[in-house]
Amino acid sequence: MSKELVFGHQKPDTDAIVAAKAFAYLQNKLGKDVEAVALGEPNAETVFALNHFAEPMPRIIKAAKPEVDEVMLVDHNEPQQSVSDLADVTVTDVVDHHRINGFNTAQPLNYRAEAIGCTSTIITEMFIEEKIDIPVQLAGLMLSAIISDTLLLKSPTTTDKDREIARFLAQIADIDMESYGIDLLKAGTDLASKSDKELIDTDAKSYDLNGTNTRIAQINTVDLNDVLSREDGIKQAMSDEMASDNYQLFLVLATNVLDSNSELIVVGDHQDLVEKAFNTKLNNGQANLPGVVSRKKQLVPPLTETFNA
Amino acid sequence: MSKELVFGHQKPDTDAIVAAKAFAYLQNKLGKDVEAVALGEPNAETVFALNHFAEPMPRIIKAAKPEVDEVMLVDHNEPQQSVSDLADVTVTDVVDHHRINGFNTAQPLNYRAEAIGCTSTIITEMFIEEKIDIPVQLAGLMLSAIISDTLLLKSPTTTDKDREIARFLAQIADIDMESYGIDLLKAGTDLASKSDKELIDTDAKSYDLNGTNTRIAQINTVDLNDVLSREDGIKQAMSDEMASDNYQLFLVLATNVLDSNSELIVVGDHQDLVEKAFNTKLNNGQANLPGVVSRKKQLVPPLTETFNA
Repeated sequence: MSKELVFGHQKPDTDAIVAAKAFAYLQNKLGKDVEAVALGEPNAETVFALNHFAEPMPRIIKAAKPEVDEVMLVDHNEPQQSVSDLADVTVTDVVDHHRINGFNTAQPLNYRAEAIGCTSTIITEMFIEEKIDIPVQLAGLMLSAIISDTLLLKSPTTTDKDREIARFLAQIADIDMESYGIDLLKAGTDLASKSDKELIDTDAKSYDLNGTNTRIAQINTVDLNDVLSREDGIKQAMSDEMASDNYQLFLVLATNVLDSNSELIVVGDHQDLVEKAFNTKLNNGQANLPGVVSRKKQLVPPLTETFNA
Repeated sequence: MSKELVFGHQKPDTDAIVAAKAFAYLQNKLGKDVEAVALGEPNAETVFALNHFAEPMPRIIKAAKPEVDEVMLVDHNEPQQSVSDLADVTVTDVVDHHRINGFNTAQPLNYRAEAIGCTSTIITEMFIEEKIDIPVQLAGLMLSAIISDTLLLKSPTTTDKDREIARFLAQIADIDMESYGIDLLKAGTDLASKSDKELIDTDAKSYDLNGTNTRIAQINTVDLNDVLSREDGIKQAMSDEMASDNYQLFLVLATNVLDSNSELIVVGDHQDLVEKAFNTKLNNGQANLPGVVSRKKQLVPPLTETFNA
């Protein structure tokens, strides 16, 4: 059996990094030769979590085929979010909690997805099913991923299973979830040190909306004014990136992680369809979307539906 | 929570019918309102199994949306193998053991696939994970599905997990797997009573091979001459169906289930690519393919690769 690589999506968040580490650990325990890698630099939140649990960051790869013939994907499946040469390798395993879109294989594979808050929740279940002990440090990291993806179990994507698994992991890691969680989320919102381009790059994904090449970035903050006061610079950075990377539409969702209030910033084509999707009016390319905190559950589905209508 | 329907693929085989019944039973035990239905008449093998275990055939539906908003798929995911109005409903759950192709969703979902011999093996694992007892009759049916899909654990798709789960189910059902299995497979190979059109319709699936609309039928037999002696009529039926249903390519794989020897019959375009895919020469549209018994594992992947090259 030859070696495989496992990785999360481009522009990795905490779950993308942690789920790869956890799934590699699980697969190795099951007898496979699997290495966790990443498709980009860790964000500030992930660095905080890795440091807190004294765990190394996986090395970063640009392409898979030079090293392996087979790969495993965690926390994503859409090819444009994955490694650049995905088409040249065979995907043997996927663990994910997103919609399935544009993901096609020639061969049967192992695919485990659940409509829940975090990939690390699913991987924890797999540890339990396989009766494999979770090391303390890994439990702390998977708890961090759940806190990150669910905004401390408050996002609408959160399920009872996420809550139960988070408690289970907090016990193993011997962590006070609430106080550690607020520290973790705050660590991810140090916006002042970032350029406008970094703000829209840190947590961004690409989508094909019925032929419209779309970029959707999310910026977490503890004060929306930290984002809105930089509106002109952010819009300029969005326009620059649309020109350089051929996006026709760019959405930025700035989210206050403490009170779940969000501001949407839109640049590009089809702004009328964006208004229709969220039943709102854009004012100078902006709209307030109270309670909208999940790109996956609250942005992408209405956009997909409206653009396909 | 509103009612959902669960069903296997069109032209159902034993696994498509049984997996739907088993998954509905499991979901009902987990508190959901789910009814198993089918997308077509049962074949002779499935009728034999249902009669043997005194279990009813699910009712047959033509469309889902008139009844429900949400559905669950078992033993398939490709839309052209599914219910005609799949695009009008939301898929909440999939359990499958095939490649993923053309399956796209707007929302996250529960997707459980493993690269193993039979969907009923995966569903049995889910019963075990959820600690739900399997009724004797259902165990007998799921064992029948595994025997059917793996040709009594001899197909190359068979894994250790299928063998282990088959033994587990045989114990619950109190069945001698070998003798029951041969009776079951023979029941599915009563070809004399079928018309040429029925022969190529009973276990047939449609595939998009890089733009070539392709039909692939499999005929199980205990004597290849029962098929080859009807070559002219079968080829005529293939041509007729290509004209009526707009297939550009039609493959029939006649398989001796006792010795795993197969004869391929091809009508339509791109026969050179078919030859290339199987590294063989077609003689009057026919070629012997010893050891090839699995459409999913031994026909579709090389065809996909060759047509996409």
